[in-house]
Amino acid sequence: MRDRPYLVGLVGSGVTPSLTPPMHMVEATHLGLSYVYRPIDMTVLGLDVEDLGATLDWAERLGFDALNVTHPCKQAVLAHLDRVDPIAAALGAVNTVLLTPEGRIGYNTDTTGFERAFRDGMPDAPLDRVVQLGAGGAGSAVADALLRLGAQRLTILDLDAARALALAEDLTARHGVTVLGAAAQTLPAHLAGADGVVHCTPTGMAEHPGLPFAADLLRPDLWVADIVYRPYLTELLATARSVGAPTLDGGRMAVHQAVDAFELITGIHPDPSRMTDHLHRLVADHDAAD
Amino acid sequence: MRDRPYLVGLVGSGVTPSLTPPMHMVEATHLGLSYVYRPIDMTVLGLDVEDLGATLDWAERLGFDALNVTHPCKQAVLAHLDRVDPIAAALGAVNTVLLTPEGRIGYNTDTTGFERAFRDGMPDAPLDRVVQLGAGGAGSAVADALLRLGAQRLTILDLDAARALALAEDLTARHGVTVLGAAAQTLPAHLAGADGVVHCTPTGMAEHPGLPFAADLLRPDLWVADIVYRPYLTELLATARSVGAPTLDGGRMAVHQAVDAFELITGIHPDPSRMTDHLHRLVADHDAAD
Repeated sequence: MRDRPYLVGLVGSGVTPSLTPPMHMVEATHLGLSYVYRPIDMTVLGLDVEDLGATLDWAERLGFDALNVTHPCKQAVLAHLDRVDPIAAALGAVNTVLLTPEGRIGYNTDTTGFERAFRDGMPDAPLDRVVQLGAGGAGSAVADALLRLGAQRLTILDLDAARALALAEDLTARHGVTVLGAAAQTLPAHLAGADGVVHCTPTGMAEHPGLPFAADLLRPDLWVADIVYRPYLTELLATARSVGAPTLDGGRMAVHQAVDAFELITGIHPDPSRMTDHLHRLVADHDAAD
Repeated sequence: MRDRPYLVGLVGSGVTPSLTPPMHMVEATHLGLSYVYRPIDMTVLGLDVEDLGATLDWAERLGFDALNVTHPCKQAVLAHLDRVDPIAAALGAVNTVLLTPEGRIGYNTDTTGFERAFRDGMPDAPLDRVVQLGAGGAGSAVADALLRLGAQRLTILDLDAARALALAEDLTARHGVTVLGAAAQTLPAHLAGADGVVHCTPTGMAEHPGLPFAADLLRPDLWVADIVYRPYLTELLATARSVGAPTLDGGRMAVHQAVDAFELITGIHPDPSRMTDHLHRLVADHDAAD
């Protein structure tokens, strides 16, 4: 154990129930590290994005080693950093900030986490035609990962067609491949010729139960990746499995964003399968307690 | 281990080398607690007493359970508390603040720590006539403890005679016994008829080596208590022992202020002899590294 134990925080709105802090701490205990990870819930504290600079200043003064940063601060935090990792800079969003003696350095382990989750969980999945549903913050991180993974024809759909188009334009400009954007209503047509679909909306979470699109659009030769992980097995994934489609659950992205952040903070690469066990247990415990 | 690990800070000027944080953390590890204790050094951070309110606000927001508070904040912190323990309120100084959902509660474990150290280390020492050298903040906490312990005739001496007189007047008013104050030059006369002497100045610390008064004033029937604990065996204590005088080392007060703070924070009473071992090892390690 190093002399100085680790102190980490998670800054964002409504982060109190997040499983990321316990996931880090359980793994740290396993590794024999002293590691405290506190949620800093802006909703509970009455803080807003304008308070982010002060939050970073004080976290630094009070001895925090790092912060994870989430909604609504992933873009705003960039203004308060000294350096930004190129992958995070390209995406324009940061979810991990190291507070080092040499300054504040930003990373994005949402996008690297999805990339690693996909490589590990679906190493042979075809990426010629990929459809992504959801163009919000998480969708943006996932789309960047899909393009780094080699997706050839990526189509972004959203109930808000303008948001889908804007993200598609941004991706096209940054990655040098043509990404299409369209309204969510066009999903059936796009899925028809697709290899796989990535679901990046809240549908399927405990508060938003149900399927994000009609079950009869699923088929055995269309892989399905979900980023929802509470519940672990969403209705979308269960239905996809029932028709024999390959699936990638959202827990893998949740685990790998935590694995990558943990490694940035400690320099130690934790075992992803052990981290997955932690997350499974935490989801079961917390969702049983709700 | 409870679900939520402990997060504690030490706020004050020049606290970076303090052994209180590692003393707490080593004991917590021993007890199987996850416990991070950070120094928050106002000198390093460029903060002053006016920033104390913001420091407490942010420590609370960022998930600290408690703060120890030291020079120059022990009096100033009172203005930022919701409740103060009666012993600390009487003294007008707080060194431990619990940040609870019900508000901020202040305690003073310097004075309770000296009291406990004395009861444990010198249970049978006579307290009819006690001389105390040093009327600063630490001296003030020690004098209150001596009066709670039952000291009958207490004389406070200081190089700054006015400071000694002011503390004596304050003690007289608060405790209902007559406490005398005088200039440090009168020490030989006061020691002549005394049962014991308590040393509360920095003399004997590594940066202020030497004896606080002439060695020939020591005698076998004059007990000597020192509050300096780095080095653990001060020149004063070594000299007192060499003439056969009973002694109480400053480490005991350092341990018991930490024991009492640890118990306030965790509800667990740590083993003082184990805490003493921690402090001995830490003093040896740190002073060897200097």
